[in-house]
Amino acid sequence: MTADRTKRNCLAVILAAGESTRMKSSQSKVLHPVANRPMIAHVVDALAKAGISEIALVLGRDAEKVEAAARNAGVASTVHIQTERLGTAHAVLAARQAIARGYDDVLVVFGDTPLITETPLIAARDGLAKGADVVVIGFKTADPTGYGRLITENGELLAIREHKDASEAERAITYCNGGLMAIDGRKALDLIDRIGNANAKGEYYLTDIVEVVRAAGGRAIAVEAPEEELTGCNTRAELAVIERLWQQRRRHEMMIDGVSMIAPETVFLSFDTRIGRDVTIEPNVVFGPGVTVESGALIHSFSHIEGAHVSADAEVGPYARLRPGANLGEGAKVGNFTEIKKAEIGPGAKVNHLSYIGDAFIGAHTNVGAGTITCNYDGINKFVTRIGENAFIGSNTALVAPVSVGNGAYVASGSVITADVPDDAVAFGRARQENKEGRAVLIRERNQAIKNAKKKAAE
Amino acid sequence: MTADRTKRNCLAVILAAGESTRMKSSQSKVLHPVANRPMIAHVVDALAKAGISEIALVLGRDAEKVEAAARNAGVASTVHIQTERLGTAHAVLAARQAIARGYDDVLVVFGDTPLITETPLIAARDGLAKGADVVVIGFKTADPTGYGRLITENGELLAIREHKDASEAERAITYCNGGLMAIDGRKALDLIDRIGNANAKGEYYLTDIVEVVRAAGGRAIAVEAPEEELTGCNTRAELAVIERLWQQRRRHEMMIDGVSMIAPETVFLSFDTRIGRDVTIEPNVVFGPGVTVESGALIHSFSHIEGAHVSADAEVGPYARLRPGANLGEGAKVGNFTEIKKAEIGPGAKVNHLSYIGDAFIGAHTNVGAGTITCNYDGINKFVTRIGENAFIGSNTALVAPVSVGNGAYVASGSVITADVPDDAVAFGRARQENKEGRAVLIRERNQAIKNAKKKAAE
Amino acid sequence: MTADRTKRNCLAVILAAGESTRMKSSQSKVLHPVANRPMIAHVVDALAKAGISEIALVLGRDAEKVEAAARNAGVASTVHIQTERLGTAHAVLAARQAIARGYDDVLVVFGDTPLITETPLIAARDGLAKGADVVVIGFKTADPTGYGRLITENGELLAIREHKDASEAERAITYCNGGLMAIDGRKALDLIDRIGNANAKGEYYLTDIVEVVRAAGGRAIAVEAPEEELTGCNTRAELAVIERLWQQRRRHEMMIDGVSMIAPETVFLSFDTRIGRDVTIEPNVVFGPGVTVESGALIHSFSHIEGAHVSADAEVGPYARLRPGANLGEGAKVGNFTEIKKAEIGPGAKVNHLSYIGDAFIGAHTNVGAGTITCNYDGINKFVTRIGENAFIGSNTALVAPVSVGNGAYVASGSVITADVPDDAVAFGRARQENKEGRAVLIRERNQAIKNAKKKAAE
Repeated sequence: MTADRTKRNCLAVILAAGESTRMKSSQSKVLHPVANRPMIAHVVDALAKAGISEIALVLGRDAEKVEAAARNAGVASTVHIQTERLGTAHAVLAARQAIARGYDDVLVVFGDTPLITETPLIAARDGLAKGADVVVIGFKTADPTGYGRLITENGELLAIREHKDASEAERAITYCNGGLMAIDGRKALDLIDRIGNANAKGEYYLTDIVEVVRAAGGRAIAVEAPEEELTGCNTRAELAVIERLWQQRRRHEMMIDGVSMIAPETVFLSFDTRIGRDVTIEPNVVFGPGVTVESGALIHSFSHIEGAHVSADAEVGPYARLRPGANLGEGAKVGNFTEIKKAEIGPGAKVNHLSYIGDAFIGAHTNVGAGTITCNYDGINKFVTRIGENAFIGSNTALVAPVSVGNGAYVASGSVITADVPDDAVAFGRARQENKEGRAVLIRERNQAIKNAKKKAAE
Repeated sequence: MTADRTKRNCLAVILAAGESTRMKSSQSKVLHPVANRPMIAHVVDALAKAGISEIALVLGRDAEKVEAAARNAGVASTVHIQTERLGTAHAVLAARQAIARGYDDVLVVFGDTPLITETPLIAARDGLAKGADVVVIGFKTADPTGYGRLITENGELLAIREHKDASEAERAITYCNGGLMAIDGRKALDLIDRIGNANAKGEYYLTDIVEVVRAAGGRAIAVEAPEEELTGCNTRAELAVIERLWQQRRRHEMMIDGVSMIAPETVFLSFDTRIGRDVTIEPNVVFGPGVTVESGALIHSFSHIEGAHVSADAEVGPYARLRPGANLGEGAKVGNFTEIKKAEIGPGAKVNHLSYIGDAFIGAHTNVGAGTITCNYDGINKFVTRIGENAFIGSNTALVAPVSVGNGAYVASGSVITADVPDDAVAFGRARQENKEGRAVLIRERNQAIKNAKKKAAE
Repeated sequence: MTADRTKRNCLAVILAAGESTRMKSSQSKVLHPVANRPMIAHVVDALAKAGISEIALVLGRDAEKVEAAARNAGVASTVHIQTERLGTAHAVLAARQAIARGYDDVLVVFGDTPLITETPLIAARDGLAKGADVVVIGFKTADPTGYGRLITENGELLAIREHKDASEAERAITYCNGGLMAIDGRKALDLIDRIGNANAKGEYYLTDIVEVVRAAGGRAIAVEAPEEELTGCNTRAELAVIERLWQQRRRHEMMIDGVSMIAPETVFLSFDTRIGRDVTIEPNVVFGPGVTVESGALIHSFSHIEGAHVSADAEVGPYARLRPGANLGEGAKVGNFTEIKKAEIGPGAKVNHLSYIGDAFIGAHTNVGAGTITCNYDGINKFVTRIGENAFIGSNTALVAPVSVGNGAYVASGSVITADVPDDAVAFGRARQENKEGRAVLIRERNQAIKNAKKKAAE
């Protein structure tokens, strides 16, 4: 055993066996996403950053899916099914086998507090390293009604007093129990086994460990986390609150790092969104997973970006839909009701109006006219369209893949292109126009007659 | 007379004769919509749920339109025009004839408090049933400045004290007059007639009824409503506040019932929006009137849905515009700049990019390619397009209605379809492509020459 | 010298020489936009409304760009480069030459408080006109921690006490120093020159002028501004707060003036947006610079409007993109994934689905079908499309400019129009349809074979 946290090994027990009844959901609440990642994955991420060695998942409903969602490169995990629900201490003991393997630290956390960061987890582990047997993570709040109060004295945690059992003086305490804790790994099973169930519900409460450890002559302390980090999730309304807090936190970090957001509350980020300095994001932009935006790019309003890369000084939107595999080169422009999927848009190229570009390569400085569509699908297979550099695709063109258009080539507006177009060639694929003089008068008369007939029929 | 509310009949007097000057509007404020329904219709809806028998509308401006907006199946109403404005008691007396018909209960409410629910209205009627002569609906507020205070003692309402007349001690009271009240229907006219106008403005104030009834040896009480429910509307800024409160309330109910909203504050519901369990709604979705979404559907960002039905597990958006008569089958997908109007999209069918589908039937599992347009309008009449099951409509196709495409048929990309396509047939309707080698170089030279000439002309 | 402010001349010194380090930006913070206008231009606008005669810009980084951004018709300005940073008094003295020209009033303001309005600036000038030598602009705040407190007595400002130097009693004062001030122009240089730097940082603080002027037997007073107006900007997070406050203020003014906003917090205005009475704006609308909307128009959700004019009773959106030069006539309708650029849409004309109209004139009551595209660009030049009145453009039409379509003309769906269409003529420009019976079966088989082959190849 050592006082240096980084030399101690640590098991994290994640309690995630709840029925999630109040979510009214077809799946366990810990699978519900926050910032496009399952809630529990956020918790595992914080644990990984706190340097844990292994995870014991205490699961019930949807165990297989939850295990998959909790997977995290570099952290091993075991699954422990909790079949009965007899309180939090009982839940932790479902992972008895894991704890018995022997660890310096045991962290007990919840699968439904995805806003937790590594900071209080590390502080709790440091508490163990410095000799405490139990470290409770608490929070300070303006309105503590209903929470268990942390009774502390000279840096010791004397007790966790439930609201209903608290004296008037104790109720004035605003330092509350967050539920998460760190326990000396060598003593953990012994301590938890001593927790009784002599209470109204006949359940085993992990919070009683404070009493137990002190009775045994051990030492409990508390460390503080921001209230926000301990927000739990029982309903979809609370899930929405957690999402909002997550988004506020991340947006603020990005702005401080040099990203401009005109109306940050209308920008929705994913857990892995990466945005460079001097990028401006206008109101109403949604980032799905897997997006990187490089320095100096401009993201206009009403853009929806997912699995895409936007290079420096590119311009996206308004109304750009970048789907997975969209890759915009430096200074490229995509916008105005245009969808890009699995396609490279070369540096300085423009696809700026009402186009669908899928499974394609578009060369540098090529201009793709309004209403251009790559016909990449035959109902069964997908095919590729290749367009060279400095080409010009006239408006309302259909490019039937597999097909290629050469460098400097020119496709006439309204064409259907089914065969390759050589470099510097002009391709036409449209019918010749014919005017019938005066005929519109007849058409209007006929249409009006149809209307009159319909009307008469309806009478 | 009976102590059982449900056996008592009830007249509701709705005061809605105001000039709405501060709205700066071309119509009466009670016609302005909240959640896509005129404000006054929300009030009538709450009254109907409170079990009233009849409504007396006290109107001024836009009386005819207001009467129409207040219509509600199963509740009869009469209109009473208020020509002079001499205070709220005077306004109620405009409905003298209605009150004189004889009711157990008379409820007095305002046309411009659309957040009122049946709960306090029922509580007020229960107060009458239990023997009170007057029941005032009050609310508690953090900052009561400016409101009339409810002076109560042992469950009796002693007086309503205007802010300016209140003592220091009375000003500390946070229980305030909400303006709405219930009056014993047999005594109502007699009580209101006794209200005087010996005040600064020389007006007849309904709140004075408390003094009047107590002077006559009767009994007044107060019942409490949440402050929010009594929010009134005098300006468009206040209208926006009411809309926000309405939306927050309804979104919360939906989330508690099992609907996921990533960012509830960006989802806008209508009064009649119905959404099933396990539906996820991404940020920035607008629901117009008449929408039902069944369980498990996914509504992506930037969708605008109105008068449409979305079946289970269907996927809508991003950027889907569903207009009245859009009917999506189970597992159907519509999105990415696509508009659907009066059209059935069969189970598992996809219309996924830049399409307009109007007045159409699309069979199960049919794939409609990018940029497909049903030409449903000849400038005068609308015609129908029918597409069978498992068909494939190539991209950039125009379907000129009336026209039909058979089951399993295949339409080549870029076609204009004017004649029916049989089952399993392939239809082409496009010109053959021609390449002119090297011609693009000449075109570029010509275009550059035009530019130079323009530039020269401009000098 | 006169007691009538309007007869006094005034120099405004704008301090804008900061390095803007915490913005992490490639440009000075005062160039960052609020409501689509550089921050400093808002300050200059308020100064112009306060009747100043001239501006002295104290600049450092990006001086040339800042000078350009600060330009304002009717207000002359000079630039003064601050090379060292030795405190605010030192910064003002960078403009010594300007102040020395002699003014009745000298206003000292910051380039990074863009929410300032003319009201406190005028109040400060009025203070000078009534005989004060220095007028400090203060604000009252709920939490004054960290701010300098204004110590006042009998209407005199005795001192500005920094938080760290304040007594317990002084810390309870909530009236704080806003930093902006007005100084008697004839005494300004003398007073500022007397400010010393005997403090921890060895800097010259302008706030010390209060002490200086009182020591010299002069008179200092304070005038109050709303706290919001003094919000400064040091990070992009603060910039977002300023933008939010600006938007809230402007939206509120508009609603009070008779504009309906369903969800004002989702409507984004520019500094020069002008909207008429009885206009309704649905949720999620973005106004870029240069927009006017006339009375009775309806702006649907997800519209993005910039440099455009919308006439009375026109209908825009949902999903309308109006770009600079879009000019919608009375009762015109544009929406549903349609982009308009530099084009007149005549009264009652409709462009309602998936269209791009650029460099065009569309006559009254003409109907433009879904998917219509004006091909206005040849890769080098832009050309104009002219469509007459009461014309009908069939869906999925490409109009290759320069081209014109006459009054009452009719263009068949799916046409490519390259030549002018006379009045009342019908134009066709599309291929004839051909059906190949049973061929879809073969196509499906072939496509499936391709898929199988690909799959095999991948194994």
